[in-house]
Amino acid sequence: MLTRPCVDLNADLGESFGPYTLGNDSQVLRLITSANIACGMHAGDPRVMENTVRASRELGVSIGAHPGFPDRVGFGRRNLEATPLEVETDVLYQIGALNAFAVSNGVQLQHVKAHGALYNIAVSQTEIAAAVARAVVRFDPRLIFVAPVGSALEHAGIEAGLPVSREGFADRGYNSDSTLQSRQIPGAVISDPDNASERAHQMVKEHRVSTVDGGWLPIQVDTLCVHGDNPNAIEILRAIRLTFERDGIAIAKMADVLKAKVS
Amino acid sequence: MLTRPCVDLNADLGESFGPYTLGNDSQVLRLITSANIACGMHAGDPRVMENTVRASRELGVSIGAHPGFPDRVGFGRRNLEATPLEVETDVLYQIGALNAFAVSNGVQLQHVKAHGALYNIAVSQTEIAAAVARAVVRFDPRLIFVAPVGSALEHAGIEAGLPVSREGFADRGYNSDSTLQSRQIPGAVISDPDNASERAHQMVKEHRVSTVDGGWLPIQVDTLCVHGDNPNAIEILRAIRLTFERDGIAIAKMADVLKAKVS
Amino acid sequence: MLTRPCVDLNADLGESFGPYTLGNDSQVLRLITSANIACGMHAGDPRVMENTVRASRELGVSIGAHPGFPDRVGFGRRNLEATPLEVETDVLYQIGALNAFAVSNGVQLQHVKAHGALYNIAVSQTEIAAAVARAVVRFDPRLIFVAPVGSALEHAGIEAGLPVSREGFADRGYNSDSTLQSRQIPGAVISDPDNASERAHQMVKEHRVSTVDGGWLPIQVDTLCVHGDNPNAIEILRAIRLTFERDGIAIAKMADVLKAKVS
Amino acid sequence: MLTRPCVDLNADLGESFGPYTLGNDSQVLRLITSANIACGMHAGDPRVMENTVRASRELGVSIGAHPGFPDRVGFGRRNLEATPLEVETDVLYQIGALNAFAVSNGVQLQHVKAHGALYNIAVSQTEIAAAVARAVVRFDPRLIFVAPVGSALEHAGIEAGLPVSREGFADRGYNSDSTLQSRQIPGAVISDPDNASERAHQMVKEHRVSTVDGGWLPIQVDTLCVHGDNPNAIEILRAIRLTFERDGIAIAKMADVLKAKVS
Repeated sequence: MLTRPCVDLNADLGESFGPYTLGNDSQVLRLITSANIACGMHAGDPRVMENTVRASRELGVSIGAHPGFPDRVGFGRRNLEATPLEVETDVLYQIGALNAFAVSNGVQLQHVKAHGALYNIAVSQTEIAAAVARAVVRFDPRLIFVAPVGSALEHAGIEAGLPVSREGFADRGYNSDSTLQSRQIPGAVISDPDNASERAHQMVKEHRVSTVDGGWLPIQVDTLCVHGDNPNAIEILRAIRLTFERDGIAIAKMADVLKAKVS
Repeated sequence: MLTRPCVDLNADLGESFGPYTLGNDSQVLRLITSANIACGMHAGDPRVMENTVRASRELGVSIGAHPGFPDRVGFGRRNLEATPLEVETDVLYQIGALNAFAVSNGVQLQHVKAHGALYNIAVSQTEIAAAVARAVVRFDPRLIFVAPVGSALEHAGIEAGLPVSREGFADRGYNSDSTLQSRQIPGAVISDPDNASERAHQMVKEHRVSTVDGGWLPIQVDTLCVHGDNPNAIEILRAIRLTFERDGIAIAKMADVLKAKVS
Repeated sequence: MLTRPCVDLNADLGESFGPYTLGNDSQVLRLITSANIACGMHAGDPRVMENTVRASRELGVSIGAHPGFPDRVGFGRRNLEATPLEVETDVLYQIGALNAFAVSNGVQLQHVKAHGALYNIAVSQTEIAAAVARAVVRFDPRLIFVAPVGSALEHAGIEAGLPVSREGFADRGYNSDSTLQSRQIPGAVISDPDNASERAHQMVKEHRVSTVDGGWLPIQVDTLCVHGDNPNAIEILRAIRLTFERDGIAIAKMADVLKAKVS
Repeated sequence: MLTRPCVDLNADLGESFGPYTLGNDSQVLRLITSANIACGMHAGDPRVMENTVRASRELGVSIGAHPGFPDRVGFGRRNLEATPLEVETDVLYQIGALNAFAVSNGVQLQHVKAHGALYNIAVSQTEIAAAVARAVVRFDPRLIFVAPVGSALEHAGIEAGLPVSREGFADRGYNSDSTLQSRQIPGAVISDPDNASERAHQMVKEHRVSTVDGGWLPIQVDTLCVHGDNPNAIEILRAIRLTFERDGIAIAKMADVLKAKVS
């Protein structure tokens, strides 16, 4: 069991809002093991949250909170100079809100993954990273904390005593300093399923990923993200699953991946 | 113990927002036993919620969620024709959000009281009342449900199996059909402490209250509300406490008032 | 000229928001003569408004403000018990906001059409209708006011001295009292192009429309609405254009239809 | 006339919102010559905008738009990494919205002054400064553009061909690089009327102001800002007026100050 590599597949879901539909949640849900559900600040609303929790439960997909900046028009993708206190309380608020739909539908939150600009800032800014981790540990120290290996965010999760799931991105270009290529740059979001699945293979099997300048970045991943708003999300997830089958890589929920590591 | 009448004093708190301060929470908290805390849809924000939960805990005041319509500019006081599903999920969302600040500060939610227009609509509309009760019972069936005696809201709480605390308003005029006088009408909000405390006395001791047309309305109350944004809130609460001392009426938390009734 | 019937085709556009796309604006714009552009309260945002004004200008489509209730999650389709003062100032705000994009792109606002629940309420409530008309006349008394014939809204426009364009809905069922069938009822939104174009023909050529209970409603229309979020909007507009060609009905901008009537 | 120094006094007004009151607008209005009115993104709402325009008109105070970031809970004081296009369209939107209340109340907009974090960013970031100026010039090239002397914002206004009013802050500490001391630092907001009026005297009469490190900063000002939410705003404005009377400094509207310079 220990010799077979094992990884979780996560995607951001529940990003629709009021009259607006975003992504292809019902199909993506059939291909992932962990769903990051928007909590109503950058995307999502109470109906969308309820529906996404229920759909995840029906398909046996684990759920996590996906808190973001309170910037709906910017989809939480714009840096906002919030204080650590603002971040901590905004994240607490959002975890609690999603938890109401988990509790009332008989499921448990598995993890928390910050969204967009909040995630990116927390990757490098120690105080913001600590604020996110503090919100999570204050709510429930058993929640899995999603962060890239080597980041301030991972460090904050470990410091807080949270179980940490190290994340890689199958559909995003990496700079050589391990940051993600800016979405402003054409090609930063990878839409080719073969390319994305090759990168997934690199990360899980070879513990490295090719960078935008042609080098290699060493990386450890417990979970792989495919963006639900990637127009090719379905094809990419299918390609990854085929590749992993060929590679003998098991796909399992974030919580089970962590358990396998411990054992 | 059984012979001594007993009532809870509640007020709406945590209605400040961002740069704006509303009410006089720190003083009101010293005079009440249960705080209804705004949950960020009609008023309040995550910092205000955190601070209000902490201040309540320090003074031994029990806390409850005070969910309202998503209408910040209208302060949740304008009727909104939301569907039962919209109401149920909006209320669930708000209870969960507040609960995060309760849990992470080591206190438990005691009750849920709908705010403003949502409360008023639920007093008479069966489907909306049921939607509010469903949200509460789905989250936690031990939560106390605040509603006026004889209302659709009280009925929905009982039907859902929730403990119900029957509420009277010390600082609002009553119509003879037991509805509150509209805030549009001058005098609908009672600012005279003697008048308000006399009405509190009527409700708790005499089980009736004088109506705006000069009659009497029979009423049963377990909790009395004084509005935190009433400019005389402090004076009214002090006058009520003096009156109750004179009357031999005990003041106790909502939960303890219900326990006293049962025993 | 006078003998040939003439009508405007309008549609609600610019209802996208932040990361969300709604409707098929670029195609709809090629088939209509007047665009009702959302103003950022119920839908739309400044980028969407700018783009929609520019796309309309390029295709020679006249533009109007489409103000709605401040209820983004409900898309302005839920009744909100706003005061006349709230409605008047909200509408003024929205007209002004859109006008900035008109002025700065070298085009003039042609008309104002209230959206969703605001429109529906103003159809029957005199005070709300007057509030909408007051906002329009205060901003610019030359703006065309869109309202159904015989409604409180039409009356308010006439009273305010505004030019009124009487509107019919090609893709909505009519009750015998001339109100629109509720969107809650299946079939209330007509998606069959033949049915919709037949109704357009009835309204413009026969001055009547069949009602949901099988009768006929007399009606006068200067402009016909097809909803941009109707999945068949394009097909319906094409069918109407074919029918009108067959019927010898001219399609012209709202302003030109009114001029033709006067001459 | 030319020999007598002349300056405008401006303040940010109309920052109340829904149920919340901020500042002391009615008193501040009696002491200033130009009002910067919030436009509904960071503060203000349509009722507040209408009332503030009317109150300004009654007291002969000139009005300007005070656009900010769409961040109500942060009061527009948090940096937001918006694109130049987002800034340009957000500013256009807000100018247009306020203009509706100006037009419909028979007054003209005199100026535009960016708010809070938007102003601060535009002081140093060329592209954001250009975006603000572009919005203003697109709406009306006669609008006066408020900016600190020597800033990227002033430069952008001049480049765009706008009349520029150079602003100094009487109630804020200056760093030696001419930036304002951060509000996070205690004492950054000056509440002592004597200190503030002495600084006003320095800026207008001596063309310099003392910095937080004890040096002197050369500065040119056509308009002086006192913050409406400064608890001592009234006392500061009174002290400035007394000082200016003593100094022989005339107080005049922004537009008249610029005319006096030209003549």
